[in-house]
Amino acid sequence: MLVEGSHFLPGADARALGHKALAVNLSDLAAMGAAPRWATLAIALPAVDEAWLSAFSKGFFALADRHGVDLIGGDTTRGPVLTLSVTAMGEVPSGVAMYRASARPAYDIWVSGELGAAALGLAHPEIAEAAQRLHQPEPRIELGERLRGLAHAAIDVSDGLAGDLQHILARSKVGAAVNYDDIPRPAAFRELNDPALERDCVLSGGDDYELLFTAALERREDLESLSRELKIALTRIGTIQPGPGELAIRDCQGRVMSHRGGFDHFQPR
Amino acid sequence: MLVEGSHFLPGADARALGHKALAVNLSDLAAMGAAPRWATLAIALPAVDEAWLSAFSKGFFALADRHGVDLIGGDTTRGPVLTLSVTAMGEVPSGVAMYRASARPAYDIWVSGELGAAALGLAHPEIAEAAQRLHQPEPRIELGERLRGLAHAAIDVSDGLAGDLQHILARSKVGAAVNYDDIPRPAAFRELNDPALERDCVLSGGDDYELLFTAALERREDLESLSRELKIALTRIGTIQPGPGELAIRDCQGRVMSHRGGFDHFQPR
Repeated sequence: MLVEGSHFLPGADARALGHKALAVNLSDLAAMGAAPRWATLAIALPAVDEAWLSAFSKGFFALADRHGVDLIGGDTTRGPVLTLSVTAMGEVPSGVAMYRASARPAYDIWVSGELGAAALGLAHPEIAEAAQRLHQPEPRIELGERLRGLAHAAIDVSDGLAGDLQHILARSKVGAAVNYDDIPRPAAFRELNDPALERDCVLSGGDDYELLFTAALERREDLESLSRELKIALTRIGTIQPGPGELAIRDCQGRVMSHRGGFDHFQPR
Repeated sequence: MLVEGSHFLPGADARALGHKALAVNLSDLAAMGAAPRWATLAIALPAVDEAWLSAFSKGFFALADRHGVDLIGGDTTRGPVLTLSVTAMGEVPSGVAMYRASARPAYDIWVSGELGAAALGLAHPEIAEAAQRLHQPEPRIELGERLRGLAHAAIDVSDGLAGDLQHILARSKVGAAVNYDDIPRPAAFRELNDPALERDCVLSGGDDYELLFTAALERREDLESLSRELKIALTRIGTIQPGPGELAIRDCQGRVMSHRGGFDHFQPR
């Protein structure tokens, strides 16, 4: 559910919003290895605005059509604040869905693409590539489907690496060691030279919608080959450990780094 | 999607709201002859309110459990106005789902239960039975499933008889003649002796969630027998006619009665 003022600013681009409202839901399906099939869309808005609805629909359906998703139901009603609620449904063969509870000690921790780009786009909207990642996230649908049988626990990075990895650790009752320097990030950080912002974006920035997943060591070659085939970077950033719930993110000198946890809409930031 | 201020008043009873948020969606499934199976629930609320959430959940799950509905997903997030979005999914055997486009001339028009009770409850909250119908509607799940193979076009009366029947007429490209006096209504109207209110509630009152459906003449006995078995009144109120889209509701002297159309959230009433 996306609410104006909480999830996007008043006046946000309608077409980008239509894309993002569906994208974030398809991303959840990708993180389970599911192929998207159907969606429902409920909208509350203060007044009928044909131009807005038309632009929103363009963004929504361009993404839906690209992935063969049918809009099968929904609602349009009046409410004082623009509110969008999307439910996406998909299919995955029995036995290969990726669950958060499937991480085991010694598994590698992998991430697709780069982390921190969307949060960088929020802090520096003038960096076009980062802003694009924030407003037009691309769900990793094909990657999710291809990870079936290769990866075990997976999640999409919507609330930030540290918080989302914690969800896997909690459900799998394991811990993790992550090497900060191994986490792939946009080159723009190097030029900015703002280590505090960089750490915050990379470890705790949300909205990247990359896939974070664990896999057994013997899957390394398969995953590297899949990365080349799909032309999507897949990077090993750490290892699952036995200690339940413990997440240690270390810098290049081996020191544990502090980080903010996952995003909580009900906590002041 | 139910929005505070548009669909319910601030301070509405949380448990009744939990019931109603699911009930109105199960009612849509019943109107297609589907057995409810799964639901998702998204809530936006201004602040975490444990007591409210607990009461809301009680209402929601009491109804869900009664009909074997599993909550399989959803979202809880922050928004300035309490907003609820429920998606219900169900199953119906191939070939027997009831569609709005299936009404044919000479078919009987039937309605379950009584119409106008919920609207009466809004106008006269002191009439406890009517208020109960407004706040705690009971979706006609079992009736919907049992109508498979007997009824053709069906819809649930959520926006008022006239407006909802018009949806069937438009999709089926037919007309209808309805006898006002045949429409079943709460006995309380007799005591009130307010013919204008009565007409408005019976013809245009929403939120009753009774089933309005059409059936061939040779199904009359089956439907009367089903009515006795389920202990739910099923009443013939009119006939489908050839003239596309024309709805004539007549009083006991054969005069066509005026009525308000369906509810439109974007039109002032």
